Amino acid sequence: MGDEGGFPPPGYAVGVVGLGLMGGSLAASLRQAWPQARILGVSRRAETLDWAVGRGWIDDGGTSLPEVLAGVQLAVLATPVRTIIEQVKEADGLLPPGAVLTDVGSTKLEVVAAMSRTGRPDQCVGGHPMCGRESRGLEAAEPDLYRGATWVLCPSRATAPGTVQVVSSLARAVGARPLILDAAEHDAIVARTSHLPYLAASALARAVAEAVPERDLRALSAGGYRDTTRLAASDVSMMLDILLTNRAHVLAGLQALQQQLGKIEQALASGDEPGLAVLLEGARQSRRVP
Amino acid sequence: MGDEGGFPPPGYAVGVVGLGLMGGSLAASLRQAWPQARILGVSRRAETLDWAVGRGWIDDGGTSLPEVLAGVQLAVLATPVRTIIEQVKEADGLLPPGAVLTDVGSTKLEVVAAMSRTGRPDQCVGGHPMCGRESRGLEAAEPDLYRGATWVLCPSRATAPGTVQVVSSLARAVGARPLILDAAEHDAIVARTSHLPYLAASALARAVAEAVPERDLRALSAGGYRDTTRLAASDVSMMLDILLTNRAHVLAGLQALQQQLGKIEQALASGDEPGLAVLLEGARQSRRVP
Repeated sequence: MGDEGGFPPPGYAVGVVGLGLMGGSLAASLRQAWPQARILGVSRRAETLDWAVGRGWIDDGGTSLPEVLAGVQLAVLATPVRTIIEQVKEADGLLPPGAVLTDVGSTKLEVVAAMSRTGRPDQCVGGHPMCGRESRGLEAAEPDLYRGATWVLCPSRATAPGTVQVVSSLARAVGARPLILDAAEHDAIVARTSHLPYLAASALARAVAEAVPERDLRALSAGGYRDTTRLAASDVSMMLDILLTNRAHVLAGLQALQQQLGKIEQALASGDEPGLAVLLEGARQSRRVP
Repeated sequence: MGDEGGFPPPGYAVGVVGLGLMGGSLAASLRQAWPQARILGVSRRAETLDWAVGRGWIDDGGTSLPEVLAGVQLAVLATPVRTIIEQVKEADGLLPPGAVLTDVGSTKLEVVAAMSRTGRPDQCVGGHPMCGRESRGLEAAEPDLYRGATWVLCPSRATAPGTVQVVSSLARAVGARPLILDAAEHDAIVARTSHLPYLAASALARAVAEAVPERDLRALSAGGYRDTTRLAASDVSMMLDILLTNRAHVLAGLQALQQQLGKIEQALASGDEPGLAVLLEGARQSRRVP
């Protein structure tokens, strides 16, 4: 991996903007996969940079985009989605000619729209590696985070094939599988597979907590409660960015979920055991895990 | 463990009715913890008995209650809840004087009510070990299933203290922590901590499947979808028994869950970011895992 027809060439510089879970893990993994490249980081906090340099996850970095982006051939925005949308504009004015711009944000339509409005739409492609966890920050980062994950690439109509190729190489270098998908289609799908599970977990955690005192909850819950509510522990500010940049699809998902709960409620309330069995068996069979 | 003041005495016989995940694991664990006791199994299928004898998990057994229960001092019903309710009556006519009757069913009010209607209400106590998994059957059984789990005991007003003591010893012998709780209170709590998570997972799996083709679901879902829907893979016939013997509490939970989803939907639809943040942060903080 990392040596697809000699890509990247010696001295190739990658800038990772945001050294949280996603950015930190990406830098750490690239540092191993692309020894011939320079890996640079951007973090608002100088201590974060020092820590990442100390661990050998980046070669160098800076606390703002201007300090770093002028010298890179590939920039990866790994901040919360609404910050990414702002940084796409800022990066456009800083990157050298020919440099590729991508991101790892969880919603894509608004990011790709912002990329299309830059002066370099051919050199931009949206990205979304389908991995992550509730823990946040560089402390949670690890080089293997991307291994085996699907890394969605969302080109706009203006994106050049060479741009997609560069970011596909990046994805493969860290062990992920690139998958090209329309941004609108991506957002519709992840609204159901990712954002709706988060809201279901959160609503469930609230519905449990309102009726069960904390002491009983600790003693009288098992792995089922723990797993079903796990996503409710996600970072709220990150999730707000995601939900508010994918509002229509998430709202449709919330309505669908309430409809399904209503069907189950109706069958149970009326004692319709065969009907309830059909609903639950359908759920059991429709579940598909990778 | 297993030697609390010499309990059980040599030759003490325990009958485990139903050799699925719960009963099989219990027999296997007891066989190790109580070497001085005889562990007998009841399974409708002779091959299941042979398999369990072959693995050394039971000493002997039979395919019906009459074959086994006349010779035991402790009977544990480990079948689906509505079968347990029937078997409580049947066991009452078979057990020798003084023998203790308990169960491991997931709902308790109807089971304990059935126990109260027997001729030996003082020798009966309901039980619910808070463990398990979606996999079912003896193949999924393992001696460590109960280790660290809370084992709820629900006495009726007629239950003798010595009866609770016997079943507490059983629970401790397999590594669980006995916890005495009123059956109605138990059912209200597990409706939220266990049955509602199952229905949330099932409704979510349906709401995802109705909008996302199977191929996309496999490629574009990550650990969040997998964990949040995990319980939807549970055995439906077992869950029907649980839901239909805890209907009122489960219905109240379903309404509470839909209310919480409605609040989230309302905040997102109106773009009320601070309100949405309060709901999601509340969920994050209310989640309590053992």
